[in-house]
Amino acid sequence: MNSSREVLGSLLTIGDEILQGDIPNGNAHHIAAELREKGFRLQHIFTVGDREEEIAEMLLHCTNRSHFVIVSGGLGPTEDDRTNAAVSRAFGVPLIHDSVYVKWLKDELADRGRPWTEEAEKLSELPQGALKIGQEMAGYFLEQENVPCYFLPGVPHEMKYLMARFVLADLEKRFPQRPHYVKRVLRFQDVFESEIGHRLKQVDVEAWNLEVGYYPQLREVWVALGATADDPGEARMRLAEGEMVVLERLGREKMSGYKDDPLEKVVGRQLLQKSWKMAVAESCTGGLVAQRITSVSGASRYFDRGFVTYSNEAKMALLGLPQELLQAHGAVSGPVAQAMAQGAMEKARVEIALGITGIAGPTGGSRDKPVGTVYMACATAHDSRVEKHQFHGDRETIRQVAGQAALQLLWRSLCP
Amino acid sequence: MNSSREVLGSLLTIGDEILQGDIPNGNAHHIAAELREKGFRLQHIFTVGDREEEIAEMLLHCTNRSHFVIVSGGLGPTEDDRTNAAVSRAFGVPLIHDSVYVKWLKDELADRGRPWTEEAEKLSELPQGALKIGQEMAGYFLEQENVPCYFLPGVPHEMKYLMARFVLADLEKRFPQRPHYVKRVLRFQDVFESEIGHRLKQVDVEAWNLEVGYYPQLREVWVALGATADDPGEARMRLAEGEMVVLERLGREKMSGYKDDPLEKVVGRQLLQKSWKMAVAESCTGGLVAQRITSVSGASRYFDRGFVTYSNEAKMALLGLPQELLQAHGAVSGPVAQAMAQGAMEKARVEIALGITGIAGPTGGSRDKPVGTVYMACATAHDSRVEKHQFHGDRETIRQVAGQAALQLLWRSLCP
Repeated sequence: MNSSREVLGSLLTIGDEILQGDIPNGNAHHIAAELREKGFRLQHIFTVGDREEEIAEMLLHCTNRSHFVIVSGGLGPTEDDRTNAAVSRAFGVPLIHDSVYVKWLKDELADRGRPWTEEAEKLSELPQGALKIGQEMAGYFLEQENVPCYFLPGVPHEMKYLMARFVLADLEKRFPQRPHYVKRVLRFQDVFESEIGHRLKQVDVEAWNLEVGYYPQLREVWVALGATADDPGEARMRLAEGEMVVLERLGREKMSGYKDDPLEKVVGRQLLQKSWKMAVAESCTGGLVAQRITSVSGASRYFDRGFVTYSNEAKMALLGLPQELLQAHGAVSGPVAQAMAQGAMEKARVEIALGITGIAGPTGGSRDKPVGTVYMACATAHDSRVEKHQFHGDRETIRQVAGQAALQLLWRSLCP
Repeated sequence: MNSSREVLGSLLTIGDEILQGDIPNGNAHHIAAELREKGFRLQHIFTVGDREEEIAEMLLHCTNRSHFVIVSGGLGPTEDDRTNAAVSRAFGVPLIHDSVYVKWLKDELADRGRPWTEEAEKLSELPQGALKIGQEMAGYFLEQENVPCYFLPGVPHEMKYLMARFVLADLEKRFPQRPHYVKRVLRFQDVFESEIGHRLKQVDVEAWNLEVGYYPQLREVWVALGATADDPGEARMRLAEGEMVVLERLGREKMSGYKDDPLEKVVGRQLLQKSWKMAVAESCTGGLVAQRITSVSGASRYFDRGFVTYSNEAKMALLGLPQELLQAHGAVSGPVAQAMAQGAMEKARVEIALGITGIAGPTGGSRDKPVGTVYMACATAHDSRVEKHQFHGDRETIRQVAGQAALQLLWRSLCP
């Protein structure tokens, strides 16, 4: 699978906030995904703190082992920002003032009526030989013994901007002969991780020369397929063949779409195709399902309204539920879920509606209806489906899983 | 700030899926945060792929530089799992069968009616000297030249279990004399990152011997304070003093709470204190505000209902908005936001309600009302506040930021 011409990179992210667990390393995830999309492979990701010696040590470690190096963080003007000093130490180059950058920075500060400060002084110092990239932010390029090194700010939107505008394009220009890589992520609904592992084990990935990974999400499993080949056509072909095998093994009807097609998008397309409008009545999910459906641009074409009926009064007033029904079965029950879906459909005058009621916890459970008990219903003019679920986990997990299960119910109800 | 007795650790996470950008390194974030809570400090986090030589190289790198090492991933039964082979290579110890573990695994497989397989064979092999931890999952402890090394599975819930049950307790036992560390994260509303940076620069953190970090969230900035001292009382005192200084600099009235107190929790407490109930009418946020408010356990005591009025018909039918109002001002306007809040308050018969209407994009914008234009209102019996905002970013960002701004408006309306 590893072609000899494969281009291998190192990523070095700098910041105490990651080592202290204050924030996750979102920059590393972004950079890794962007590189893989373009057919580059990271060998390792190193995260170190704001310590000059260790940054310098790892910089040399990276330039000695990789075809390219990306560094993110530590470029700011404060004492804690040690990247430039580390570059100077590791590569044996002095820090000098970049005259173009100094001029720009002076103009910029003058425009804002601010004085030239120590911080500006530090910001305008770069390692000798560095090429400034993204003038309005920290960031530069430096070649060290033929290894291109990209130094990016740690601020996520600035890093993303420079990755998109400069780094990826520059790498593609420098390594035009790299093997072609294609990737696809398939979403499967209503399958269990263990089941997937078992069934995919039978797929001879070695023979297909495919990367196969699967990642359990909430009531959904993502199967990632990757193929590398010298010829782009061959890579695509192998990926397509691999996809067919995976679909056969896991069940074509369980695949809802690709990575960029969350279930809310898929049901949106189904509704548009039928020229149907929908509504949703939620109790325990508290607006989560409406929120997911309306997260899709253009949802106003098929989403009419949502009722977040938390109190019994709201269920009666907005959805027309009879008090007797609530008293006879309790608010968390199949008949109430069904009446909520039916009521939402009728009040909103739409073709299809969901009703969801349950106990998200951690309080409110009973022996008969423990925390995690959720009833959901989907109503159309001709059909009404009710499901009872028993979910596990904390309040947030139960709500998220219930929302996903409700979208799955809607999806299946809309499938031909 | 760095006490000489500080206990420094290395974290080595193994897995191609992180290097390929398939999943973020959630394990690293969890382990880093857990260690910091207990007063241990990670020097670096290294992520490498499923390659024996590099795992071995980095293992030695870590044991040569740290007081303890945690390794996560690569312990499974497949060909890709190379951690044990790397340990054997790096530490010069053979892999041997752990007889207790072999017996347990054999019984376990027999119970499930499964045969002894090559995978079981591989799973039951451990480096000589390893102590199995968490028998029902992969994981072991090994001391290498007085450096305790913890090998944990990459499966998140198994890793979390072993961290909580074994690793942290064992580290605390081994390093009882480490300096005491306390930490607190403060949430500030309606402040800008640049402003915070500027004001906190005046705080002499060196003199206070405090760690200060600030992390911009959506329309909210988190300020993290950490204090290390030999005496726990002294650490707490320094933290409390530091907090007072930060509050003074940034404005006490802008702090909404600590890390575990998101705004939805704070407004919940405010409502309970007033014995008020609330409702919300949402258009562009599509249920997001209702969802956040109901994410808090016990929200049914103060949240009555939510209206997700996406269509104009829904706005008229559910909130009683006159068609003329919608025609005169357009659905995205101050008067409509105000009428939505007022309508929600009256229809739900509650003391306070929010109304939100805007253009989340990417389509639907105009010259007068570009994408990101959001009007929001908060109505009570005596008071009505309307705000116009211009947000930037993609659809999801605009919705999230609008939701946060709406909760801020509610929070300020409920403040004494």
